[in-house]
Amino acid sequence: MIRTDLLIIGAGPVGLFTVFEAGLMKMRCHLIDALPQAGGQLKEIYPKKPIYDIPGFPSVLAGDLVDNLMEQAAPFKPGFTLGERAESIEETPEGKFLVRTQQGTLHEAAAVIIAGGLGSFEPRRPQIENLSRLENKGIHYIVKEPEAFLDGPLVISGGGDSALDWAIYFAQHSTHPIHLIHRSESFRAHKDSVSQAQDLAASGRIQLHTHAEVKAVSGETTLEEVSIHSKEGDPIQVKTPYWLPLFGLSPKLGPIADWDLALEKNAIVVDHTLDFQTSRAGIYAVGDVNQYPGKLKLILCGFHEATLAVQSAYKRVFPDKRFNMKYTTVQGVQGFEEKESVVA
Amino acid sequence: MIRTDLLIIGAGPVGLFTVFEAGLMKMRCHLIDALPQAGGQLKEIYPKKPIYDIPGFPSVLAGDLVDNLMEQAAPFKPGFTLGERAESIEETPEGKFLVRTQQGTLHEAAAVIIAGGLGSFEPRRPQIENLSRLENKGIHYIVKEPEAFLDGPLVISGGGDSALDWAIYFAQHSTHPIHLIHRSESFRAHKDSVSQAQDLAASGRIQLHTHAEVKAVSGETTLEEVSIHSKEGDPIQVKTPYWLPLFGLSPKLGPIADWDLALEKNAIVVDHTLDFQTSRAGIYAVGDVNQYPGKLKLILCGFHEATLAVQSAYKRVFPDKRFNMKYTTVQGVQGFEEKESVVA
Repeated sequence: MIRTDLLIIGAGPVGLFTVFEAGLMKMRCHLIDALPQAGGQLKEIYPKKPIYDIPGFPSVLAGDLVDNLMEQAAPFKPGFTLGERAESIEETPEGKFLVRTQQGTLHEAAAVIIAGGLGSFEPRRPQIENLSRLENKGIHYIVKEPEAFLDGPLVISGGGDSALDWAIYFAQHSTHPIHLIHRSESFRAHKDSVSQAQDLAASGRIQLHTHAEVKAVSGETTLEEVSIHSKEGDPIQVKTPYWLPLFGLSPKLGPIADWDLALEKNAIVVDHTLDFQTSRAGIYAVGDVNQYPGKLKLILCGFHEATLAVQSAYKRVFPDKRFNMKYTTVQGVQGFEEKESVVA
Repeated sequence: MIRTDLLIIGAGPVGLFTVFEAGLMKMRCHLIDALPQAGGQLKEIYPKKPIYDIPGFPSVLAGDLVDNLMEQAAPFKPGFTLGERAESIEETPEGKFLVRTQQGTLHEAAAVIIAGGLGSFEPRRPQIENLSRLENKGIHYIVKEPEAFLDGPLVISGGGDSALDWAIYFAQHSTHPIHLIHRSESFRAHKDSVSQAQDLAASGRIQLHTHAEVKAVSGETTLEEVSIHSKEGDPIQVKTPYWLPLFGLSPKLGPIADWDLALEKNAIVVDHTLDFQTSRAGIYAVGDVNQYPGKLKLILCGFHEATLAVQSAYKRVFPDKRFNMKYTTVQGVQGFEEKESVVA
């Protein structure tokens, strides 16, 4: 059994910053994440993408931001249970929480902070034959390393921000033909992106196929060709080593949805007027996983939410102490001496 | 007259980040600050101090953080009225705000965001003779460049965090005697700092004078000597080129206190359940200047508050538009072409 003060579900940027804020208050943290590494989406989906809206960083690569947050949390020696999904939660008679992973690892903590991001997310898959055989062999739902797609033509499907953003990106960075396929002719994306994509289509840099769909794929060991069907006219065969069906990721809360927490819009309702506590006392939800009036799913908002949640959790971890907030300037950060988690 | 979309009172870190968030929504900003430079306290009081609790920065010098925020805001070409204090506000029949500075500069905007920090702050001055004559000539209320105080003995007065932090800092960085003078023997400071200072006193590195006060200072053109009076025993004369009376800064809201905004604890009450709007519609308050249940005076909280305030202000600036939030990854940041403020 792993015992800690605060158990954090989700080791993304907000979960990592929670360790730092908790550490300033002398609380030890342990994180559980279904992914095999800390960093959440930022490390898993877009480590090489620049983020521009983290305060104080005119631009920072998602992966670098995670590295910074790991370094910032390091003095407080967090423990990690990685590659395991938090499955069940129960409360002990003493008011502690027991969280078990799918793999059976048991954790005990005085408070739980869910920083689960969008949960585990599954790509929305098109319904066509041969798909699974060529997944990750030319058919990719996520662009993790854009450089990997620069050596040949590219077919991108989708009408949302992700499809448009990548179409624009590759139109600017690749020297090969870029096809953008969309079932409709109206895009559900930022209008700047739409007009930029339309400009690139007008100049011929993007081959835009509206009212069209990829209906078939073929290839022996890797993708070789896709078949594009339009509302009118005959299907077009396009030879391409890459097809990116970017129909979005469908976030799933996963087992947390069964933790008896009030939910709304596939997210956890919290008390945003005070401490981002869920409907169950002692369980908090911060970052993209929560929902409240005016909620913005921005990392910087998660940082704030985590900081306030930690203040409240302190009262559960140390019911008899009173915390004297202190600015970190001059004094610096006093980390912990030893490893935090007691493994018994 | 300077016309803009959002008028920001206070060009500290939170005010600067407001420019960025507003810019993402295509709103132009103009900032007013009583200080002659942007950056607020961080540039004025402690530019060389490291801050450890900005998310993503294990450590950042206050001045560098401001430089980064300026760079992040730069694409949105904010205008500045610096070295002028916002004095009066009035609302036009069209629902716009007119803000005039003490110096008479007039600004018009659809919404006003007060990011005034702790306001303008005045050092608490001891009541002794000769004080004003030697101010900034050996007597300093603010440690802006710690290096300037390393070439001689140092007398520090005060019992709060600032006095203790600097006594500890100089005990570690100076090779000269360090005196710490405090009227009581109990310190109103973080207990880690108190015990660290006591250890340094026990080892002789800090000469601690409790139940004592500096009652007189002397010096021809610069400070030469201070006279320390204890509850018991004769006064002690200490030859020193520097005396730092660190009794804290007394924040003053200044003229904003007369803007008909609901106030509490010398701060502006805001609707923290939604958009950090003050009691006057269209006027927001973000960062250290505001007050709400659970408020933490942390820069990172101000970043979040500003981001939410800007979402709400958008509806005043563009009543007929609907904003489609878009992540900055991939697409980057589209700045403005020309300078923002219309000077008419």
